[in-house]
Amino acid sequence: MNAVELIQKKQSGEELSESGIRWLIEGYLDGSVPDYQMSAWLMAVFFKGMTHEEAGQLTRVMIDSGEVMDLSELPGPLIDKHSTGGVGDKVSLILAPLAAACGVTVPMMSGRSLGHTGGTLDKLESIPGYRTDLAEERFRQCLQTVGFAMIGQTERIAPADKLLYALRDATATVSSIPLITASILSKKFAEGAEGFVFDVKAGSGAFMRTPALARELADSLCRASHALGKKATALITDMDQPLGNMIGNRLEVGEAVQSLCGEGPPDLMHVTLRLTAEMLIMGGVSRNRDEAMALCSSRLNDGAAFEKFRQNVELQGGDPRFLDRPDKWPRAAVMQDIDVDADGTLRRIDALQVGRAATLLGAGRIKKGDNVLPEVGIELLKKAGDRIDRGDTVCLIHAASEDTADRARQALHGAFTVGDALARSPSLILDRTTG
Amino acid sequence: MNAVELIQKKQSGEELSESGIRWLIEGYLDGSVPDYQMSAWLMAVFFKGMTHEEAGQLTRVMIDSGEVMDLSELPGPLIDKHSTGGVGDKVSLILAPLAAACGVTVPMMSGRSLGHTGGTLDKLESIPGYRTDLAEERFRQCLQTVGFAMIGQTERIAPADKLLYALRDATATVSSIPLITASILSKKFAEGAEGFVFDVKAGSGAFMRTPALARELADSLCRASHALGKKATALITDMDQPLGNMIGNRLEVGEAVQSLCGEGPPDLMHVTLRLTAEMLIMGGVSRNRDEAMALCSSRLNDGAAFEKFRQNVELQGGDPRFLDRPDKWPRAAVMQDIDVDADGTLRRIDALQVGRAATLLGAGRIKKGDNVLPEVGIELLKKAGDRIDRGDTVCLIHAASEDTADRARQALHGAFTVGDALARSPSLILDRTTG
Repeated sequence: MNAVELIQKKQSGEELSESGIRWLIEGYLDGSVPDYQMSAWLMAVFFKGMTHEEAGQLTRVMIDSGEVMDLSELPGPLIDKHSTGGVGDKVSLILAPLAAACGVTVPMMSGRSLGHTGGTLDKLESIPGYRTDLAEERFRQCLQTVGFAMIGQTERIAPADKLLYALRDATATVSSIPLITASILSKKFAEGAEGFVFDVKAGSGAFMRTPALARELADSLCRASHALGKKATALITDMDQPLGNMIGNRLEVGEAVQSLCGEGPPDLMHVTLRLTAEMLIMGGVSRNRDEAMALCSSRLNDGAAFEKFRQNVELQGGDPRFLDRPDKWPRAAVMQDIDVDADGTLRRIDALQVGRAATLLGAGRIKKGDNVLPEVGIELLKKAGDRIDRGDTVCLIHAASEDTADRARQALHGAFTVGDALARSPSLILDRTTG
Repeated sequence: MNAVELIQKKQSGEELSESGIRWLIEGYLDGSVPDYQMSAWLMAVFFKGMTHEEAGQLTRVMIDSGEVMDLSELPGPLIDKHSTGGVGDKVSLILAPLAAACGVTVPMMSGRSLGHTGGTLDKLESIPGYRTDLAEERFRQCLQTVGFAMIGQTERIAPADKLLYALRDATATVSSIPLITASILSKKFAEGAEGFVFDVKAGSGAFMRTPALARELADSLCRASHALGKKATALITDMDQPLGNMIGNRLEVGEAVQSLCGEGPPDLMHVTLRLTAEMLIMGGVSRNRDEAMALCSSRLNDGAAFEKFRQNVELQGGDPRFLDRPDKWPRAAVMQDIDVDADGTLRRIDALQVGRAATLLGAGRIKKGDNVLPEVGIELLKKAGDRIDRGDTVCLIHAASEDTADRARQALHGAFTVGDALARSPSLILDRTTG
């Protein structure tokens, strides 16, 4: 084989064989295929795409570059959820204990905040003592005992993805759907789960700005998963406004605790329950959505889901009693409110602007390696569809200083749109697909 | 500026500014833009193209990477011809002395054989003593005295093209028309001519396989030339069968001498005269094609064109008397003939196969740096449209050994197609454009 031929093949829209893809990626890893040929191939993929089989094969080669966990000795169906990222997306913190309380084992590897989106690991680490860098033995023990565990990806998982991602980032080929697919799946499959529910977000605060693009990625994720023998379902969910009312690490943990105690905001609960239901059906715990939703409700109401979270926090190094009194948690030093100078209905809260404002406050990272603060963030008091009277406060800024609060306020300029009443309340679940 | 933004811009089909193109290419030359970003950009250009203005600006930046000759002190219009390469294309050897005899100054920098196509430098160097590596002073002197000179491109001309071409070759982006345009023009413009006639060849033996693609390249060459303030006209000419009857270095010099003495084969003479006429009109020597053709005929018939060639050979280190007796030139050691086992009309001679066979004989190079032999090649005794009787010899193989003759014979298998009479003789000039 030679790299020029493989580039030409992709250039003319042909399908590469499994051995061709393997030769290319392994050659890139061992240095025999230079980066300038790899980047030419990536750009050809950007323009000509890949079949689902090709994306599956690329995923397989990337998985094989690193380690895969064997969790087959664990009880129960092993199912995980993956979100493409958004603003105020604390679904994992509720869904994982809830699914575990319903009998699904959830081996979750998550990421950190970057840009305007939050990261599950940063949120969890705002719980004093909580460790996300568990040794594999502790991870297994936690899964065995509690039914879920939440850790970061290790260096040993899919090293090919790390290298390829850096090259894509430098060559404007990040947004290619088959390349996103292989990047996501190569890391998720290393967890050893048997099936995945994908939460593909669409809207201003999401990587996929339109429902059509999100649907394309959702189909790609499901079909490439199937090509590799994994179960997969995807929901396309709204990320045009933030999910729930809290944006910021510990603020979101607080909202997750509230949700696990049955008092979560309706939009967050709806999305979380629908995703959890998909996991229960996929794992064979429930036969249909109604049954699954009923099981979820009872596990929230009887305290079982919250108890799972407390157990997990204890096993992952935190103090579970911390979760019992969110009202005692330290608050940010500065609070500012944003009022609206109009009457009408709140039509939209721009998720991207809110995410950027939260990052400016220190809740997120502008670049890798930045520190994040636990207390800061944005608290929404109104959501789209709510009635607004002149002078109403629409959100509170929780800041470490007046200076960052002012910067966040500027970043939020125009984020809240007030106008006539909405014809109908915005959809949260935009679509569902199995590929 | 940053490379990722420039890649993205091209990816989405936008036009780059002159400063953007300059920043990118100069960054590549000084190492601040890495090759993997350059190759991603080249692949984006492959898919999205460039405007004629962009191709012109890319050309300008590439010219500026090296030296440009200033020939403004020379007399007469300075016009050159450039061919995109073919099989049996010895036009330059006839056109340059002929145009000089008509009053045009022709500062010609040519290339060498590569792959199945021949190279003017290799042909000239089959004349004993002939040098194509003249110092600049000698080049000027030859232009001043004879009106034309023929040299190779020096290392100092458009070094950016050399680097970019190597990267394109390794990343399957050679065939992009704006990149071909900038590569050709950056080298030609360094000659310092005021106008160019392009011979863009189309057919099996050409880089552009179809007339439509050739027309696209011809338009691109003319418009980018105009964007840089140069005169330019292009003819699209047939390269589906070899031009003339001789293929091979010294065999072609012999045919050129014969042509300069007024006895050239009709197809070769037709293409050569049409191209020369364009130069005379562009240079203001003749007012129209009829006038130009008449002037060419008289300069061939009165011996002035051949005399120019003799003078050039003398000034470039060869013995002009060598040209006077082609019948005394040493012949190849082995001669084989190829006969046809059919009756009818010769419908086609595949130029690509003939070119490859000639390369196998040693007339051309498979890779850069290979040696070429002066005597070997292929002599066509029949051309498309000729009547064939069973047993007729269609060509002679001039080989250095029986072994290479046999390999060439195999390579020619199926190259000659015999069938019913042609409805009309094939066109030699397929199109003309000024962009």
